[in-house]
Amino acid sequence: MMAFLQGIPASEGIAIAKAFRFEPIDVKIECEKVENSTKEVNSFFEALEKTVDELKQIKEHASTEAGIENATIFDAHLLVLRDPELIEPVVDRIIKKQYNAEFAVKEITDHYIHLLLQTENEYLKERAADIKDVANRLQAHLLGIPVLNPAMVAENVIIVSEDLSPSDAALLNPSKVRGAVTNVGGKTSHAAFIAQSLNIPSVVGTKTALGDIENGDVLVVDGYTGIVHINPTPELIEEYEKKQEQTLRDLSELSWLAKEKTISLDKQYFSVVGNIGSMEEAKGVIEHGGEGIGLFRTEFLFMEKKQLPTEEEQFQVYKSVLESLEGKPVVVRTIDIGGDKELPYLKLSKEMNPFLGLRGIRFCLGEQSILRTQLRALIRASAFGTLKIMFPMVAVIEEFRQGKLMFKEECEKLKEEGVEIGHIELGMMVEIPATALMIEAFAKEVDFISIGTNDLIQYTLAADRSNEQVSYLYQPYHPAILRLIKNVIDAAHKEGKSVSICGDMAGNEVAIPLLVGMGLDEFSVHSAAIIKTRAHIRKLNKSEIEKKIDMLLNLPNAVEIEEALENFFYKKL
Amino acid sequence: MMAFLQGIPASEGIAIAKAFRFEPIDVKIECEKVENSTKEVNSFFEALEKTVDELKQIKEHASTEAGIENATIFDAHLLVLRDPELIEPVVDRIIKKQYNAEFAVKEITDHYIHLLLQTENEYLKERAADIKDVANRLQAHLLGIPVLNPAMVAENVIIVSEDLSPSDAALLNPSKVRGAVTNVGGKTSHAAFIAQSLNIPSVVGTKTALGDIENGDVLVVDGYTGIVHINPTPELIEEYEKKQEQTLRDLSELSWLAKEKTISLDKQYFSVVGNIGSMEEAKGVIEHGGEGIGLFRTEFLFMEKKQLPTEEEQFQVYKSVLESLEGKPVVVRTIDIGGDKELPYLKLSKEMNPFLGLRGIRFCLGEQSILRTQLRALIRASAFGTLKIMFPMVAVIEEFRQGKLMFKEECEKLKEEGVEIGHIELGMMVEIPATALMIEAFAKEVDFISIGTNDLIQYTLAADRSNEQVSYLYQPYHPAILRLIKNVIDAAHKEGKSVSICGDMAGNEVAIPLLVGMGLDEFSVHSAAIIKTRAHIRKLNKSEIEKKIDMLLNLPNAVEIEEALENFFYKKL
Repeated sequence: MMAFLQGIPASEGIAIAKAFRFEPIDVKIECEKVENSTKEVNSFFEALEKTVDELKQIKEHASTEAGIENATIFDAHLLVLRDPELIEPVVDRIIKKQYNAEFAVKEITDHYIHLLLQTENEYLKERAADIKDVANRLQAHLLGIPVLNPAMVAENVIIVSEDLSPSDAALLNPSKVRGAVTNVGGKTSHAAFIAQSLNIPSVVGTKTALGDIENGDVLVVDGYTGIVHINPTPELIEEYEKKQEQTLRDLSELSWLAKEKTISLDKQYFSVVGNIGSMEEAKGVIEHGGEGIGLFRTEFLFMEKKQLPTEEEQFQVYKSVLESLEGKPVVVRTIDIGGDKELPYLKLSKEMNPFLGLRGIRFCLGEQSILRTQLRALIRASAFGTLKIMFPMVAVIEEFRQGKLMFKEECEKLKEEGVEIGHIELGMMVEIPATALMIEAFAKEVDFISIGTNDLIQYTLAADRSNEQVSYLYQPYHPAILRLIKNVIDAAHKEGKSVSICGDMAGNEVAIPLLVGMGLDEFSVHSAAIIKTRAHIRKLNKSEIEKKIDMLLNLPNAVEIEEALENFFYKKL
Repeated sequence: MMAFLQGIPASEGIAIAKAFRFEPIDVKIECEKVENSTKEVNSFFEALEKTVDELKQIKEHASTEAGIENATIFDAHLLVLRDPELIEPVVDRIIKKQYNAEFAVKEITDHYIHLLLQTENEYLKERAADIKDVANRLQAHLLGIPVLNPAMVAENVIIVSEDLSPSDAALLNPSKVRGAVTNVGGKTSHAAFIAQSLNIPSVVGTKTALGDIENGDVLVVDGYTGIVHINPTPELIEEYEKKQEQTLRDLSELSWLAKEKTISLDKQYFSVVGNIGSMEEAKGVIEHGGEGIGLFRTEFLFMEKKQLPTEEEQFQVYKSVLESLEGKPVVVRTIDIGGDKELPYLKLSKEMNPFLGLRGIRFCLGEQSILRTQLRALIRASAFGTLKIMFPMVAVIEEFRQGKLMFKEECEKLKEEGVEIGHIELGMMVEIPATALMIEAFAKEVDFISIGTNDLIQYTLAADRSNEQVSYLYQPYHPAILRLIKNVIDAAHKEGKSVSICGDMAGNEVAIPLLVGMGLDEFSVHSAAIIKTRAHIRKLNKSEIEKKIDMLLNLPNAVEIEEALENFFYKKL
């Protein structure tokens, strides 16, 4: 029998492979009187600790595989595990009622899940899945059962599941998992975002996939239309294979662009560079013909260790990245710790609003030795390539000046030590509204500017980008954002300084024409997006778009801007 | 013997009264083997709950007495109480070592305090006091000892203490406590801020006050110079009494201004109105001659109850406030819940960054019935005075439109029900950078605008105003803030709409000339500051200041603006 399901397309692409049903462990948890409730409380706390460690590992894995921006979603799970409204009643049940820990966990979490599912609020309903996920992990640890996870998948499959919890989705191994189909979820669910960034074709919200699909069924997942074919005819498979090949061919036909310049129809030069977090990723940028590195996030150097990396360790990494780029510019962002990025060994104090707290250069100006060590490692590496250094989270000019002073001091010291130093440009990130508003003062003192649109959007609209409750406010095309970006570009150009964007906007199909029209100099994107971005720019006429910018920036909201953008630029391509 | 101490002036004014030494309970906590560690764990959790409740009460008290802006500091304490790094090892000690709970608490908290005090970081050192405060409260509950607190003071005294913990300071009863002197602390400590807002003359950082001063010593606290006289001569007391009287006389000499208009030297009219949270505070505004209410925070109506107040309950409050103002305008802000303001009975979900989360109108658009009930109560009350309604936390124009639509719908329904409705203006708060940037679009659709500078500053500079680690970034005179304010005023005036400020800036001596020069229409301040603000404005020449505004707004940072402001305007007065 041939059948198909219609769901919601959540991540583009075509996948053809066998189904692998991914069902949560169905452990029968029964109530048993325990003799030694003291020991049981201990077991519970041990399971808590193991689960916290496990989730932290998953979070780290997600940071590396799926890009750090998505990793914050596991904080919701970690919050549940630290919630006294979970811990206290569980301990209470164990002690007073002599329950076994797993049953106490079940009773309490079932209660909360029930309450959440009863509400009208979509967001709260989705939180029930978080609690269920945490409860499963806790119980598995208590019972010594390994938690089944999709990272364990051994052959090429399409995952079929009720839902993909964020932690499952982050564990998806893109080299093994060809696609994903779920019963529930929407286009803006966490799982969908992660599937997108891992490039796994996905269809969500099919309602019945888990009922209709058996292990081993051959599936075709069409991530463009949301259709999932179950055991399709050979003809249909062939048709989709052709589509798949065509997509690959389109991409490989563009591969010659890796060796070309990024130049618009009206002969304006741009630069398309890569965002990286490690030496491995630098290789991807070179392969795809990036004109350099626009953002080297150095946090990973600090996060993958159990203590601060030494100057020498850092030097070796910076040196090899610079050497591998063979003279193309490498923009290194100094450590941007704080906010959602913790360093366990540093014991940062807890903050009520970490995104509005001690992060980036704020942290470094307080812990000067960390920044000075990093600057020394960078300055030493500068002789091996073209190095540019920038500070993150600069809000006021005093911060940039202090950072610059430290940089100069370390340069002087190293010179005295006889170290050879290359030419180093010193710049900053613009990701705070105050900075974008005061940019003309900064532009006089920096060598270059890079706009971090992800943060700029969340601060300008006062909406945490990892909080689904206010995700409707995360609007990249909001006129206030576009005005700030234009203000930055104009002021920087007046001082002869270049401007780059290293947020998600730089690789966004709809945004690219707009950024070209505003005169952005550099687009810094994931290495896999370099060629596509370059191809896109090569089809645009900058001076033509330029004329429409003012009109666009006078529209009152993001919806109208998006519509206008699609009409003017996108449809023409 | 006559002596004096030199400390840091932390809150202005002169206080003359007897000393009351306020020392933390010095409970001897010894290690006792407990037989029934299960029971002991239970006692610990009970003490935890009591302490949480207690701190929540103190926080609420602080919100009402000291103004809600300061109440967030207790969240740091609440975080400590919820920290598994406290809870887990305490339970572990009780179970494994059979410790008594109070000793387990002592061992663990002493350990953390020791670690924090060893760091170089000033902020972390101050956090040690938070942990000590929490430990004291926990132990007092475990031992059944009432926690001594300054709210219990029965006669007029000057509190002398090592330090005032934020929770102590918030409990100070300004009608009993004449002044405060501490050994430690600085001008920007939490305790200093709270003393200022309660108007209690205070000197901090004397180092030796608790060693030098006995209970019953007569003290003179000079909150202007930081001098504390111990048992001064009658002549000196007389001298200070004269100073005290002079201060009072200066104030009462201004009392005729309660009946005057707010008018500048060059005959420009302004309006000075009051911020209130309750009917009681409305009386203060009337007594001090406020030209209306510029901000009625309605959260307290919701926070003082165990469930949502009914439409009728709300109607009665709004009606009596409107009636008491006798036709003067009353601006009511619809419920601004979320962020740092919780409603325990609503079970809001936890957020990683509540200030960037579901608060103000964002929350109300999701929970429409709450806003609709409030709007109905307000619309019904409108017949009894001059009502203006505004929405908080508007980020995008769609939000204002949705709120307006609900308002219109409820008006229609009530009209159909035959309810008499007065003329109601509908406005909004500007407290998000995107809103200030897009103000010309909003100005067309609103009746009036009120700028919430406290939030606007924290979002524009991406710095949580209750986080001491980044408090250096909370800069009211930052040129980006001033540019946004000017942008709002200019755009609103173009559409013939008035602009008010209801943040701390409106009552700030240095800021007032600047706001007058930028053409702000209305200054909304605490009732006690109405006369002073009016007196200040009456000494200014608006058109003269106006000429200097552009130059000021082109300075690169807050420091230079502050200096220029003091030079140009303040010295002349």
